[in-house]
Amino acid sequence: MGTVIVDVMPKPEILDPQGKAVRAALPRLGLDGFTEVRQGKRFELTVDGEVTEEVLAQARQAAETLLSNPIIEDVVAITAVQECACGKGGCC
Amino acid sequence: MGTVIVDVMPKPEILDPQGKAVRAALPRLGLDGFTEVRQGKRFELTVDGEVTEEVLAQARQAAETLLSNPIIEDVVAITAVQECACGKGGCC
Repeated sequence: MGTVIVDVMPKPEILDPQGKAVRAALPRLGLDGFTEVRQGKRFELTVDGEVTEEVLAQARQAAETLLSNPIIEDVVAITAVQECACGKGGCC
Repeated sequence: MGTVIVDVMPKPEILDPQGKAVRAALPRLGLDGFTEVRQGKRFELTVDGEVTEEVLAQARQAAETLLSNPIIEDVVAITAVQECACGKGGCC
């Protein structure tokens, strides 16, 4: 069993009010080390078998058409995580 | 300038209707390779200087208190990305 992780973030020129709200809340918790916060989305797409090239191509198509809005969002990463014999993903 | 990336996903026992909606939409686009979809959040926390141990500790605290709801969500990864001389993050 494998997983494809798709990361989607708002484009830099998009305002991102959720990120701004988090940014404004951090100092109230005493966390003043951060200058900016952006909030995006993370999708885990599970496949039955291994993550093949065909699966990755499908994930790329899904990322560009369904998982992101290309007018306001960028797909910043598409990562394959193979599950190994130990039962944990991504360790071998 | 560095960045800390915080990934938050719904706990496995949580229903995740957004992920289910994506899962149901994929075959309608001809993308039938996926058995399950989960949707979570991805935060990019920017710092002025380097990502030090103190910054990472602050990011961990933010992740557990502000960026996730520990009753229904797991913080699945906290990753430091240092910006290098070439201007791109994470390449060296």
